[in-house]
Amino acid sequence: MEKKSEYRRFSEEEYETLSQVLQHRRDVRGNRFSKEKIPEEQVQKILQAAIWAPSVGFSQPWEFVLVTDSVVRREIHDSFEEENEKAAALFHEERNDLYQQLKLEGILESPLNVAVFYRPSEKPVLGQTTMEEMGKYSVVCAIQNMWLAARALNIGMGWVSILDPKKVKSILDVPQDRELIGYMCLGYVDYFLPEPELLRLNWEKRKQLESLIHREKYGC
Amino acid sequence: MEKKSEYRRFSEEEYETLSQVLQHRRDVRGNRFSKEKIPEEQVQKILQAAIWAPSVGFSQPWEFVLVTDSVVRREIHDSFEEENEKAAALFHEERNDLYQQLKLEGILESPLNVAVFYRPSEKPVLGQTTMEEMGKYSVVCAIQNMWLAARALNIGMGWVSILDPKKVKSILDVPQDRELIGYMCLGYVDYFLPEPELLRLNWEKRKQLESLIHREKYGC
Repeated sequence: MEKKSEYRRFSEEEYETLSQVLQHRRDVRGNRFSKEKIPEEQVQKILQAAIWAPSVGFSQPWEFVLVTDSVVRREIHDSFEEENEKAAALFHEERNDLYQQLKLEGILESPLNVAVFYRPSEKPVLGQTTMEEMGKYSVVCAIQNMWLAARALNIGMGWVSILDPKKVKSILDVPQDRELIGYMCLGYVDYFLPEPELLRLNWEKRKQLESLIHREKYGC
Repeated sequence: MEKKSEYRRFSEEEYETLSQVLQHRRDVRGNRFSKEKIPEEQVQKILQAAIWAPSVGFSQPWEFVLVTDSVVRREIHDSFEEENEKAAALFHEERNDLYQQLKLEGILESPLNVAVFYRPSEKPVLGQTTMEEMGKYSVVCAIQNMWLAARALNIGMGWVSILDPKKVKSILDVPQDRELIGYMCLGYVDYFLPEPELLRLNWEKRKQLESLIHREKYGC
C-alpha cells in the first residue's frame, strides 16, 4: 500500500509564484530579442518542461526540431513573409495600417527556433478514440509548459503561426504524416511588456472573466 | 519611455517551484476525488489562470460552463459510457482486459465539472489567417493553465475526452458554432500519484527526451 498522505502539497506562496509566472508570460517578437545564445542547460530545462505535459493516453506524441542555422531560418522566414502578405490584405483601413506596423515574429532575431510537431500513432490511443484532435491538444499543452518554463528562466518565447505548415515540414525534412503545431522563437529579451501588446495598442479589448462563465447551462 | 530594466525577473528558486508544479500535475480520475466542495474563491483562481493564457491575436476565444447539477452530469456521463464502450472494442486481448479495469473519468465523483469551449470569431483574427486551428490551440493553453493552477492549489483535475462533443453541447444548450475543447473534472483528492497511472501500469513507456529532439533538420 502506498502511504497516501505523502503527496506533494504546495503552499500559498508557491501558488503565488506560479500565478506570477502565468501573469508575466508574454508572446515575444523580434523587436525584443537579444542575439545572446541560450545555454544548452537552459534549453534542456525548457524541453524537459514540455515533456512533463499531460498527453492523451500517455501517448507523448511530440517531436522537436531545434533550428539555429541562419540559412534554414531564412527559408522559414520567406514562408512567413508570403503568408503575412496574404494576411495583411484581410485587415482593412486603420486596422491594415496598424497590422503593417506590427512585428509579428522573431525568426531571424532570436537565437533559437523550435518547431514542434505532432506525431500520429499507428494504433488506437486511449482517450483519443472519439476526439481525434486530442493528440494535437497534448502537443499544445507541451508548448504552454515550454512557455512558462522559459519565462521562469527569464527567457522570452514567441509563437509564429503565420507560416505554411507544408513548407515548414519540407524545409526541415519532416515526414509527411507529422503535423506542425507551433513554431517557436526563443531568446533573452531586453524587456517583457507588462501586458499583451495587442491590448496596449487597442487591437482587442480584454474580456472580463465573469462574461465568459456560464453556470449549469449556457446562457445562465 | 518605459523603464526597460523594471521587468519581473524570476529567481532560480521560483523556477524550481514552477518545475515542481509541472512535475506533480496529474490527470485525476473518479477513484481519487473527494466530494468536498471547492470554495468559490479557488474556482475563481483557476478560471483566472485560464484567461492569463496566450491567445492568438489576443482573441481570448474561450468560454466556460461550470456544472455541478447531478442530473446534468448524469447525462454527460451517459455520453461517456456510450463512447467508452465503442472505445474499449478497439483494444484487444490483454490490453482490452486492462482497458476495462481503468477508471477514465470522474464526472460524477468530482464536485465540479468545467466544459471549455472555443468560440470562433466572425472577423479575421490576427495570427489565425493561415493556421485556422490556432484559436482552438489558444483554448488548450488556457486548459493547461487551469491544470497547473489547480495543482498548485492542491486541487486535482482530469480531462475527459471520451465524450461526443455534439451531445455535450446539446446537454449544456451551447450554441452550434462553439466547439468543445475539453471537459474537465475538478476536486480535492486523497492522493496525487507520483507518476502517470498509464506509465505505472505499463500501458505506455516513457519516451526519452533526447529521442524526441532533432537538430537543424529532422533525423539529425
